[in-house]
Amino acid sequence: MSEQQRTIAMVVYPGLTPLDMVGPLQVLGGLSALDPRFEIAVVGEHTDPMPTDTPLQICADRAFDEVPDPFAVIVPGGMAPTMRAMTDERLQEYLRDTAPGARLMGSVCTGSLVLGAAGLLTGREATSHWAFLPLLAAFGATPVRRRWVTDGPVVTAAGVAAGIDMALHLVSTLAGEDAARRVQLVIEYDPEPPLGPLDWETADTAAFSPSMPEYAIREGLGDYPELRERLATQLRAQS
Amino acid sequence: MSEQQRTIAMVVYPGLTPLDMVGPLQVLGGLSALDPRFEIAVVGEHTDPMPTDTPLQICADRAFDEVPDPFAVIVPGGMAPTMRAMTDERLQEYLRDTAPGARLMGSVCTGSLVLGAAGLLTGREATSHWAFLPLLAAFGATPVRRRWVTDGPVVTAAGVAAGIDMALHLVSTLAGEDAARRVQLVIEYDPEPPLGPLDWETADTAAFSPSMPEYAIREGLGDYPELRERLATQLRAQS
Repeated sequence: MSEQQRTIAMVVYPGLTPLDMVGPLQVLGGLSALDPRFEIAVVGEHTDPMPTDTPLQICADRAFDEVPDPFAVIVPGGMAPTMRAMTDERLQEYLRDTAPGARLMGSVCTGSLVLGAAGLLTGREATSHWAFLPLLAAFGATPVRRRWVTDGPVVTAAGVAAGIDMALHLVSTLAGEDAARRVQLVIEYDPEPPLGPLDWETADTAAFSPSMPEYAIREGLGDYPELRERLATQLRAQS
Repeated sequence: MSEQQRTIAMVVYPGLTPLDMVGPLQVLGGLSALDPRFEIAVVGEHTDPMPTDTPLQICADRAFDEVPDPFAVIVPGGMAPTMRAMTDERLQEYLRDTAPGARLMGSVCTGSLVLGAAGLLTGREATSHWAFLPLLAAFGATPVRRRWVTDGPVVTAAGVAAGIDMALHLVSTLAGEDAARRVQLVIEYDPEPPLGPLDWETADTAAFSPSMPEYAIREGLGDYPELRERLATQLRAQS
């Protein structure tokens, strides 16, 4: 990693949840506009269009081997396709190869399971989407229910929208609170959820858990019975 | 518009701010998962990759003429490229052609200026990104400083991140509060801005306004001196 250029690599793979990636992308793009030492790359196995879990298709602007020495790597999450990403050898290799030199390895939502599969969460505290949180223990991590969790060079965010909060925290850390306030102002991040914040006491989590992670594991890991069983066991142990 | 299928058309054009589009896309995708009568389309002039204001490229999944009769149309915003979108004849024609039959015409951020240029805000209250809000008056709209503004079939959101709040409001309206709560839970939208919500009393708006809209107008409307001057005059009148 050169001191001049600090590349923040936003990782993409087929089937991801686009808001997991685009929230931090837009925030960190604001950092890059304020401080050009930070450069954003969207990296994937190739630069052709790839599907997301919506009708939108997206393209990386660089292939993994074009960004061999990133300052930071951030892995978004998703459902069954993210379970598959745990077994994607090129993606896993990219994470293992870049982690030793990177200042920061990050994830949003179930992206933390992809970091976990690469062995990057062993012995660390981490978080994930609320319904998938117990699965982190299968990779030797200590699951923590928090908006984002920092442990050494690893920062993991809770589900989907938490990536925006985590990314603003990273801007604060990397460039100071004034920079973070400016980015927040430009993207007018002044949340007003119409029904208020989530009320975890009354939230109907039973409608989604454990069925949502069970489905994702079954669909995503059909060809990987050993990992599938390990995760399913972890899930049952927690519910 | 058939009663069976209610297509929500998320409009894309080159150079947009991806979070403007992907926030509502993910929320309304959740609506579609809960109630399959709602279908999401990402529509643009073509389905080839197009740039955004970040290194990410995106692809529409359908061309304008493939979605002639949408239930709802939502236009995201951006900077100079969005000013250009005000003069994009194909996009403007799509908005004018679909508005009479659509139940809902919406925008995020400066996307409201694109609706305004299509004549859809005349005599209506509307909102936009805070720095661009005065420009709405150039299209006969009454600018309102609010997270989202509904006036008849037109709903406009404030800057970038406000699209998530507006979209959750739309889910409430279209499918009920329980549906909106479920979507909010799945995308874990429980905001914790690390430095708190925006403090408009102390926010350094002077660092961006009027320079940010001035720049966008100058860059985006170089070939349209009449519109450029009209908007610049409106901006000066308000500052």
